Amino acid sequence: MNFTGEPSTSHGVVERRFDVDGERETVPGIVWTPEASTGPRPLVLVGHGGGGNKRMPYVLSLARRLVRHAGYAVVAIDGVGHGDRASATRTADRGSGEGISRTFVADVAAAADAMTADWTVVLRELRELDDVGDGPLGYWGVSMGTMFGAPFVAATPEVRCAVLGLMGTLDDTNPWSTAAPAISCPVLFLVQLDDELVPTESALALFRSIGSQDKRLHAHPGAHAAVPAEEMEASEAFFATHLT
Amino acid sequence: MNFTGEPSTSHGVVERRFDVDGERETVPGIVWTPEASTGPRPLVLVGHGGGGNKRMPYVLSLARRLVRHAGYAVVAIDGVGHGDRASATRTADRGSGEGISRTFVADVAAAADAMTADWTVVLRELRELDDVGDGPLGYWGVSMGTMFGAPFVAATPEVRCAVLGLMGTLDDTNPWSTAAPAISCPVLFLVQLDDELVPTESALALFRSIGSQDKRLHAHPGAHAAVPAEEMEASEAFFATHLT
Repeated sequence: MNFTGEPSTSHGVVERRFDVDGERETVPGIVWTPEASTGPRPLVLVGHGGGGNKRMPYVLSLARRLVRHAGYAVVAIDGVGHGDRASATRTADRGSGEGISRTFVADVAAAADAMTADWTVVLRELRELDDVGDGPLGYWGVSMGTMFGAPFVAATPEVRCAVLGLMGTLDDTNPWSTAAPAISCPVLFLVQLDDELVPTESALALFRSIGSQDKRLHAHPGAHAAVPAEEMEASEAFFATHLT
Repeated sequence: MNFTGEPSTSHGVVERRFDVDGERETVPGIVWTPEASTGPRPLVLVGHGGGGNKRMPYVLSLARRLVRHAGYAVVAIDGVGHGDRASATRTADRGSGEGISRTFVADVAAAADAMTADWTVVLRELRELDDVGDGPLGYWGVSMGTMFGAPFVAATPEVRCAVLGLMGTLDDTNPWSTAAPAISCPVLFLVQLDDELVPTESALALFRSIGSQDKRLHAHPGAHAAVPAEEMEASEAFFATHLT
C-alpha cells in the first residue's frame, strides 16, 4: 500500500489516498480513519455507484459519518473503468429513463472477478495498518456497488454484514445474481420504488435470492438516486448492530 | 368512559379496562399509561389483527414497550366481531394458506365505518383523562389493523403518523384501498415477503397508493405473522421521530 500525497484532516476525520497493486492494474483508493486513533476498529468497505468514483459525495458523506459517529475505518476504491481508472475510450454510461444500459451491465459483469480480487488485496493491505487492524468487517454498496459487491461479499466470509440494493437480477446469468444465494451474512437491502434503472420486481427477485437468513428490505418512493438520508442513518444503525 | 374493574400495574405500566358507548354497541378497550403520571403525553392507538383482540400478545407487548420506553399512553379496542365483541354466530376466520378469506374481507369492509366511529368516540373520551390529555397522536395497526386503520387515519387529520401494513389492495373497492390516497401523514408500512394471506404485489400496490409524501416500506422474509421484533423497535423509533 503506497500512500500518495499528504493526509488531510477535516473535523476529526483523516483522509489518506493510496495505490495498491491490483491483479491487472493499479487500484487507487482512500481510507478514512478517526484522528489520532490507534488499534483495531471496525472497517467498512464502500463500493461506489456507476459513473461515480471513490470520493463521490455520498461515499464521502457516509465515510465521514461512520468515522465521526462510530470511530470506524472506511475505505473506498475506484471501480474498474471509474474515477482514476477510467479509460479514455469508454464512458461509464449506466443508462437513462429507458432502463439500465446493456453495455454498462456487460462491462460491469466482465469486471466483477477483477473487482473481487482488487477488494481482496486492498483488504489484506489495510489489515496491516495500525489504526485499522483486524476489526470486524462490513460492506456498503448499492447500484454498481451491489453489482461488484455481491460477488465480493459472497466470496469473503469475513464480511459480517452488508448493505446492498438499487439493483435487480436483470437476467439470471450476471455475477451478482449468481453470487446472491451464496451470501450468508446479515443484509440490509435498499429499494427505490420509482427506480428508472431497476424495476421493482427485479430488485425484489434479487433480494429474495440472497442466501442470508437475516435480511431486510427498506423501500422508498422516488428515483434511483433519491435514497433518503434516513437510510444512511439505518445503515449506520445496522453496522452498529453487527460490527460493534 | 366507564372504567371496569380495578387498574392493574406491571413494571411501571398501569392497565385500565374501559367501556365506551359506541354507535351501535358498547366498545370495550384498554388504556396503558405510565405509573404515577400526570399531564398530556403522546397517545398511540393500536388496532389488533384479525382473529385477535385488544390484549393479544403483540398488542400488549407494544403497549408496554411504548409506555415504558417513551412514557406514552397507548389504547387498544376490540375490533367489530372480535374479543368481547365477538358474536356467537360468526367466527373470525381470516383465511388460510390459500389466501385471505372472502367472508372475512367482506365482514371487515362492512364494519369499517363503524370502527372509525368507534375510534373517534374512544379518542374523544381519552382526551379527557388527566394522564392522556391533548398530546400528539399516532396509530399502529397491521393486517386487520390496517383494514380498519387506513379509513380511520384518512378521516382523522390529528393523526401525526401511522404504522400500517400486512395488507394489500386485494381489490379496488374495499375501504382501506379507497382511503389510502387520502392518508397524508408519515407512514411506516410493514410487509412480509412470504405472506400467505397478502400477495407482495398487492401490498406494494396499497403502499404505492398511500397519499403521504413521507412514507417508507420495511419488508422481511417470512409468513404473515412472523414480523420480527426489529420492526417493533423501528415502530418505536418512528413514533419518537414524529410524536416527541
